[in-house]
Amino acid sequence: MRVMGIDPGLTRCGVGVVEGRVGRPPTLIGVGVVRTPSDLDVARRLLALEQGLEVWLDEHRPEAVAIERVFAQHNLASVMDTAQAAGVAALTAARRGLPVTFHTPSEVKAAVTGSGSADKAQVAAMVTRILKLDAAPKPADAADAVAIAICHVWRGSTTNRYAAAVAAAKGKNQ
Amino acid sequence: MRVMGIDPGLTRCGVGVVEGRVGRPPTLIGVGVVRTPSDLDVARRLLALEQGLEVWLDEHRPEAVAIERVFAQHNLASVMDTAQAAGVAALTAARRGLPVTFHTPSEVKAAVTGSGSADKAQVAAMVTRILKLDAAPKPADAADAVAIAICHVWRGSTTNRYAAAVAAAKGKNQ
Repeated sequence: MRVMGIDPGLTRCGVGVVEGRVGRPPTLIGVGVVRTPSDLDVARRLLALEQGLEVWLDEHRPEAVAIERVFAQHNLASVMDTAQAAGVAALTAARRGLPVTFHTPSEVKAAVTGSGSADKAQVAAMVTRILKLDAAPKPADAADAVAIAICHVWRGSTTNRYAAAVAAAKGKNQ
Repeated sequence: MRVMGIDPGLTRCGVGVVEGRVGRPPTLIGVGVVRTPSDLDVARRLLALEQGLEVWLDEHRPEAVAIERVFAQHNLASVMDTAQAAGVAALTAARRGLPVTFHTPSEVKAAVTGSGSADKAQVAAMVTRILKLDAAPKPADAADAVAIAICHVWRGSTTNRYAAAVAAAKGKNQ
């Protein structure tokens, strides 16, 4: 399954594409960021983000898109910008008929490091190790996007295997 | 100037279009809501919202779009949905090259009622009176969207008159 992970943002929106299967380490297909000019107003930046994400979707043709869920805990003004960016990211994927899943930061951290409270450096280090890279993807938003994609591949397959096991168990009981 | 006001939301996104000029009461052109099915996931609802807003923009061809700014004060989960909806609204307008302005709830309330802390009923009553309607637009999200559009026409003209006055004063001093 090819998954595009998106770490939403207006200044730097992280994008990471991995290909993965159950029981195998995922492979990195592409990683980077979409930047939008800070001298534009929010609406124009959202338009630039849409255009940048369309290029990534055209080029990498993911089967699913995973987006980090935004929480309103820290800087409220920037959180609203981030939520708007997440909305545009979800929209571009939905327009192509792709499944869109939101994962919380702690789900992503737990999936790649084993700890829901890991810091950014730990996440980047585990992403580097899991994908057998020479160095962590940079900037941090790009590494986070890859972690979101890995999280989705691994959680997705867990969910699928669980669903399959439940279905099999039901079959046995009938 | 024809302005489309948008009260962003996924369940009911208010839309109100008014036409107004400096020194004249604005005229109501159209008012209603875009609803998205609650059984769809957020990405699919954002797509339905985009499609609904495109219909409104096609039909009413505003020269400017005004959106209520979302604050993270109340229900955090629904605020994030609302912010994503606001992002999609801003995007659809930006794609058409329309100017997009965000107004805070207190700016909107102050513009139509004179008080930044007016309640929804007071806003609806003043919208009804300003536009010389027989009854307030319903639901409340629709009335709010009209208030946002009126706010934009009036604040916009204030800003324009101020800018014109500054320009005139500069001309005199030269």
